[in-house]
Amino acid sequence: MTNQTIVTAAMLAIGDELLSGRTKDKNIGYLADLLTLSGIDLKEVRIVADEEDSIVEALNALRGRYDYVFTSGGIGPTHDDITADAISKAFGVPCEHDAKAMSLLADMYKRREMEFTEARQRMARMPRGAAHIDNPVSTAPGFIIGNVHVMAGVPQVFQAMIGNVLPTLKTGTKVLSLAIACPYGEGDIGTPLAAIQKAHPETSIGSYPRYVGQKFSTEIVVRGRSQDVIDAAGKEVEAMIEDIRKAKAIGENQSAEA
Amino acid sequence: MTNQTIVTAAMLAIGDELLSGRTKDKNIGYLADLLTLSGIDLKEVRIVADEEDSIVEALNALRGRYDYVFTSGGIGPTHDDITADAISKAFGVPCEHDAKAMSLLADMYKRREMEFTEARQRMARMPRGAAHIDNPVSTAPGFIIGNVHVMAGVPQVFQAMIGNVLPTLKTGTKVLSLAIACPYGEGDIGTPLAAIQKAHPETSIGSYPRYVGQKFSTEIVVRGRSQDVIDAAGKEVEAMIEDIRKAKAIGENQSAEA
Repeated sequence: MTNQTIVTAAMLAIGDELLSGRTKDKNIGYLADLLTLSGIDLKEVRIVADEEDSIVEALNALRGRYDYVFTSGGIGPTHDDITADAISKAFGVPCEHDAKAMSLLADMYKRREMEFTEARQRMARMPRGAAHIDNPVSTAPGFIIGNVHVMAGVPQVFQAMIGNVLPTLKTGTKVLSLAIACPYGEGDIGTPLAAIQKAHPETSIGSYPRYVGQKFSTEIVVRGRSQDVIDAAGKEVEAMIEDIRKAKAIGENQSAEA
Repeated sequence: MTNQTIVTAAMLAIGDELLSGRTKDKNIGYLADLLTLSGIDLKEVRIVADEEDSIVEALNALRGRYDYVFTSGGIGPTHDDITADAISKAFGVPCEHDAKAMSLLADMYKRREMEFTEARQRMARMPRGAAHIDNPVSTAPGFIIGNVHVMAGVPQVFQAMIGNVLPTLKTGTKVLSLAIACPYGEGDIGTPLAAIQKAHPETSIGSYPRYVGQKFSTEIVVRGRSQDVIDAAGKEVEAMIEDIRKAKAIGENQSAEA
């Protein structure tokens, strides 16, 4: 086995609207794709309501367990945006108007000839000592405290922010993957696939059923941290599919002859 | 305040593929909508990998805290489907082939002239004493143990299973909602909206920014457990929007005169 570095992460998506069904989350899948491509293993996701206790508890559980935590939502200007307060509380530091963020926002609203309202000033609040995450879409920054990266919930802003954060993160050995389309259902492949998994412990082999036109087929995904281990297991998966095809063809011939 | 019954729930979505980004979850939003319509409050969602310890820990945390837990994923016939084992472990009971499930599956495969393989028999495994959740799509049942409802990850099957489960659940006073389109950004509405929220503590008022064509607008959602409290707050939200419109019109006239 070659030297491997594992870097782990969790996501905490914050917002009543995700739990009521009003908003269908788009950030979890986006972050999952991006982290996988970058060599960071997303290990857990939680979705909680806009309630201080729930946010604090989930954040403290996750930040102690994983290298990075990424949050989405609750950093806007309205009364239900309580993420900055909750994160501050979790870290035991005051939540206050950040001077640099105040100045960025004041300049932006001045340029746009808009009033820098008390509500808008809320967007400059963050835990004392937090670093900024630039927001090229709508100026109001996200922030970083400890290993926690706090970003907006609006997908365009979330994506811009994570794009700015990603180059600053340590990354591990990437998990590569090979997807193999399999015309057979999981019941046909279950036993031989388990044997292949057992013979290739450095890979993680998943099978994902598809149900189209009243018929199950499967996508088999071989994941691992080197192309060699993936290719070795992938070859056996392809041989397995061929074996099943032959066995089914013999079965059909026998039926026809009977 | 009238008598209200609150029934709470959590969801545990299980699967490496949700965390790698390969699969974009469709069950969380579906369940959220359905529970809201039914009078059950979805309070928390977790997504964990196909790892026994992670499933056990998350399940035990959630089932102690909420009236119901709904899980998705990991009950198929392949080696990476370990949900039945993990749930059994969490409850401290053996995971075994259920006689009724074995018979259901054996009959189905016989009808379809397919072999009832060892892998397919895995789908009959569940914690001892669990009740079935019927699966009209592909026969293999989900199951119920304690307050935990274990369902498939394939959306068509998940939806069919939750459809069978829902009529058996106790439900609470429904959360109703009123959505009001607001042409102004959150910075314009933040302060007056916070005042409306404060005056209507029986409602929960959320504002959800939209970013279209380089411009923010907002959807304001008033939620509450009676139409009266929602309507009272909704009326004030509409008056607030009208006030902002007037204030902006005056501002523009003054600019034009200046």
